[in-house]
Amino acid sequence: MDVTADKHSVGLVAPHTARFDESLRLKSGAAIGGYELVYEIYGKLNADRSNAVLVCHALNASHHAAGRYAGDPDNVGWWDNMIGPGKPLDTNRFCVIGVNNLGGCFGSTGPQSINPATGRAWGADFPVVTVEDWVNTQARLADHLGIRRFAAVMGGSLGAMQALSWTIQYPERIGHALVIACAPNLSAQNIAFNEVARQAIITDPEFHDGHYYEHNTKPARGLRVARMVGHITYLSDDEMASKFGRQLRHGKLNYSFDAEFEIESYLRHQSHKFSDYFDANTYLRITKALDYFDPAAEHGGNLTLALEPATASFLIVSFTTDWRFSPERSREIIKALLDNRRDVTYAEIDAPHGHDAFLLDDARYHRLVASYYDRIGKEIAV
Amino acid sequence: MDVTADKHSVGLVAPHTARFDESLRLKSGAAIGGYELVYEIYGKLNADRSNAVLVCHALNASHHAAGRYAGDPDNVGWWDNMIGPGKPLDTNRFCVIGVNNLGGCFGSTGPQSINPATGRAWGADFPVVTVEDWVNTQARLADHLGIRRFAAVMGGSLGAMQALSWTIQYPERIGHALVIACAPNLSAQNIAFNEVARQAIITDPEFHDGHYYEHNTKPARGLRVARMVGHITYLSDDEMASKFGRQLRHGKLNYSFDAEFEIESYLRHQSHKFSDYFDANTYLRITKALDYFDPAAEHGGNLTLALEPATASFLIVSFTTDWRFSPERSREIIKALLDNRRDVTYAEIDAPHGHDAFLLDDARYHRLVASYYDRIGKEIAV
Repeated sequence: MDVTADKHSVGLVAPHTARFDESLRLKSGAAIGGYELVYEIYGKLNADRSNAVLVCHALNASHHAAGRYAGDPDNVGWWDNMIGPGKPLDTNRFCVIGVNNLGGCFGSTGPQSINPATGRAWGADFPVVTVEDWVNTQARLADHLGIRRFAAVMGGSLGAMQALSWTIQYPERIGHALVIACAPNLSAQNIAFNEVARQAIITDPEFHDGHYYEHNTKPARGLRVARMVGHITYLSDDEMASKFGRQLRHGKLNYSFDAEFEIESYLRHQSHKFSDYFDANTYLRITKALDYFDPAAEHGGNLTLALEPATASFLIVSFTTDWRFSPERSREIIKALLDNRRDVTYAEIDAPHGHDAFLLDDARYHRLVASYYDRIGKEIAV
Repeated sequence: MDVTADKHSVGLVAPHTARFDESLRLKSGAAIGGYELVYEIYGKLNADRSNAVLVCHALNASHHAAGRYAGDPDNVGWWDNMIGPGKPLDTNRFCVIGVNNLGGCFGSTGPQSINPATGRAWGADFPVVTVEDWVNTQARLADHLGIRRFAAVMGGSLGAMQALSWTIQYPERIGHALVIACAPNLSAQNIAFNEVARQAIITDPEFHDGHYYEHNTKPARGLRVARMVGHITYLSDDEMASKFGRQLRHGKLNYSFDAEFEIESYLRHQSHKFSDYFDANTYLRITKALDYFDPAAEHGGNLTLALEPATASFLIVSFTTDWRFSPERSREIIKALLDNRRDVTYAEIDAPHGHDAFLLDDARYHRLVASYYDRIGKEIAV
């Protein structure tokens, strides 16, 4: 496809790198001496720099949220259906920023980067990072770009946790939070699935206690199992049933341990793709950031108190068949915001796809987001 | 505890072994030349041998369904709360038989047994076995014991699939089927979780293509991950939340990859226990038997046609919070039975525990089973 012919695409994009030399204190108590963040920008900052929107990524995504790269035209941004000229997040009006989080594996400083203290890759020594740490690094990136206040911060899933945390950590720097397919913390079941993923990776003999780069290998088998577990939780039972059901690959049972059902083949294929491009140390840290996120914890479990500092307006969206972060979990956030008399718009989208619905091109969902951005655009007159 | 003092326990029990020399044709087309089954018996066969009840086991259980062993008093039968004098399945009235399925790892012929063709352990060469194969071996065991007809065949989960298959394969040899926490086949999501478990085992370098016995090792890491995945699906989200929630092991976060949340510690502990006593080749085969079970498949997906031969009476029980085999799946079976005008009693038990509820001592559930056996007892006058 010729992207220059697609008038709703941001077209060809290129990543930028920002260097931060000042040491950053992390929530764990550790500090990181200096780091780089990779980011992309779609659309233009207006004169008073009031039209910036930060898009936060979830588990396996990156700064590459929209458009394509000149040398790699198949690598379309992960939220390309949402971001672009005339799309729900309209780059004709808004200046959109995507950033690869600290600890990531797509160019920002992470476990694969060189640890200046040793001259070798950080590996297992890279610190554990949290949602709050990411928000702090994103605020520094905003400083670097001369953005005092975001018109909106937006994300789905773990990205939504960052948007929510922005409203608590930097209430004066965020106008709106778009919190999609989110939860105020992980349930025991959510943590359990993450722990399965971690154990699959950590017990892979190729993991070498996290220093596998030095051994010129990687725990691909563990990472694949981890991805398969995750993948199942992103899809609804119904969606899997309608997409795969009990369909056989070769029309009949073979009574072997090859992939016999289509769902097996699909999961194997997806997990292999994933293990080719994703780093296991990053995966481990991102699942930990998910487990740790719990803004209410510092307030005795009281989410209302935790959200008291937030002054942003909120769009909260959940999906009926999301069993990872069900609509009930979004309603916990809404209740806490309403307790604080905050401005909240909520929609529960009747979508069959499960948690992954936030990434998909659902007409009602996209119309809702478009109209919410229309409201933001009117407020800041863009 | 002194078991002789517990008047509701079957007390000390001992396993028996039955040898079958006649070759058995398996559903896969393969044949197994001869095999042994290990079984236990609780209670006494009456004069006309009409009071026998077969109890079929699910994934990780065995023939040891009730009582204790003299040398190993902590090894209590897996359904001991259900089976015993005065218990719902009352061994004062019924003669209860538990059997370790073919391919198992508790004494019946399985992957750890010696393959007569090679003089070495079967390992990966042990055939794939199905629910239908197990029922055939159980029928041979009944012949061996002089039992022409079971008063009832009973099981939960995969055990329930065997009870259901009994009504189709040997309708004249079964009076009642107690089909608990069952499904007429696995959903794509169910298969997906099984496939994660299998991939964890098969890609463990210690698996050695299933011939790990010869290498004096076992794929313990893979088997642990497999067990963790399974375990999560046996419990309800709510049960996990109330048992573990986000409780920390040491009161505060450590920002490490040690077990920090109680749920992590619990899963690790359970999975280690499991990998000590269970065989990975058996686990692989049992998950395959689950995937394959689908009596409707040979009738173009029509479960009503598949169940047409069944003449047994049915007690079907599901549990509200079972998300592995939800009540909806039981209702599919009921609909097919009612289409055939069969005698069906159904109860959906409001229990918080998820799939594992079938193993637990829930008062309403046990009263229901007790009263159903009371009816069976009256019919056969025991």
